[in-house]
Amino acid sequence: MGYNVKPLDRLIEQFERLPGIGKKSAQRLAFYVLNMPEENAKQFARDIVDAKTNIRRCSVCCNLTDGETCSVCSDPSRDHSTICVVESPKDVFALERTREINAVYHVLHGVISPMDGITPDDLTIKQLLARIGTGEVKELIMATNPDAEGEVTSMYISKLTKPLGIKVTRLAYGIPVGGDLEFADEVTLMRAIDGRSEI
Amino acid sequence: MGYNVKPLDRLIEQFERLPGIGKKSAQRLAFYVLNMPEENAKQFARDIVDAKTNIRRCSVCCNLTDGETCSVCSDPSRDHSTICVVESPKDVFALERTREINAVYHVLHGVISPMDGITPDDLTIKQLLARIGTGEVKELIMATNPDAEGEVTSMYISKLTKPLGIKVTRLAYGIPVGGDLEFADEVTLMRAIDGRSEI
Repeated sequence: MGYNVKPLDRLIEQFERLPGIGKKSAQRLAFYVLNMPEENAKQFARDIVDAKTNIRRCSVCCNLTDGETCSVCSDPSRDHSTICVVESPKDVFALERTREINAVYHVLHGVISPMDGITPDDLTIKQLLARIGTGEVKELIMATNPDAEGEVTSMYISKLTKPLGIKVTRLAYGIPVGGDLEFADEVTLMRAIDGRSEI
Repeated sequence: MGYNVKPLDRLIEQFERLPGIGKKSAQRLAFYVLNMPEENAKQFARDIVDAKTNIRRCSVCCNLTDGETCSVCSDPSRDHSTICVVESPKDVFALERTREINAVYHVLHGVISPMDGITPDDLTIKQLLARIGTGEVKELIMATNPDAEGEVTSMYISKLTKPLGIKVTRLAYGIPVGGDLEFADEVTLMRAIDGRSEI
């Protein structure tokens, strides 16, 4: 059931396919586009095609880039002997915001998840091993998400790479800064106790 | 602050400009587009341009159409002597769903709202008067929203058209079917009492 105006119905359908956009929102967005100046709507369309066409994976770390290698991998001031392994490009962004990481990254593009049929072969683990193969890498900082799949993926990569003489670390677990102790779950608290440090 | 990948940042910005889409949602949508098959992303872009380029206002009723006149206005089985006046194309859609209306429509594309600087000249009232001028029209059914602006707009049009010998009616006010009497506001209840009918 649509507005019986084909180009409008098609645009509503397109918006409806996006995640988290329901029928009502899709209508609202389509009408918004109709009311945009024509040049803006065309620019919007161009930006979709442009992003889809020009963004590829960095040939080194598999992060998203519009060049051959990403800005981190092509930065000589970075410590290329330490690789921070993350699940997705969003995680790179989050870590970069801290300005704490001088290492380079490796983006797995997922986690091992037998339930969803995702095996190690679906991730960029082969590329990671190839990087390690060059002999330049000394440490992997595992920064997968603190959930079951993230843990399993970290363990898997750790088991593969430790025999190669690589130091494998992972981000500390603990109570989030600014968080409230009474709302922390037991597992987090347990990990925070295990990981306590002298002050 | 973006991902430092220009085409991606631009696409995120585009989504952020849409109403009701925040920074996080915009990122989610942009990544979704990146993961679409290329042909789907291009089709999405084409549908945006297509909707923007091909949808115009019906030359008779000002509803949205991709032709010269909309499907309702070009339907000879409709009663062209009765015009249902609504605020927006969405209202036409809502009324058409009832299958109760055999009249044609007139879409005002807004309501008189001095607060927002919208005067009668910004609406399609001139076009409505032109339609009445042909002498074919006998009745206007005012179906603006039941709020202050909708009321004012209805009254304004009614005052303009009654002297021309046009019958002007408006949709009944009352308690919504399936609604709960105890949650109805006083004004609605008052209107429902005023408009009571024999059973």
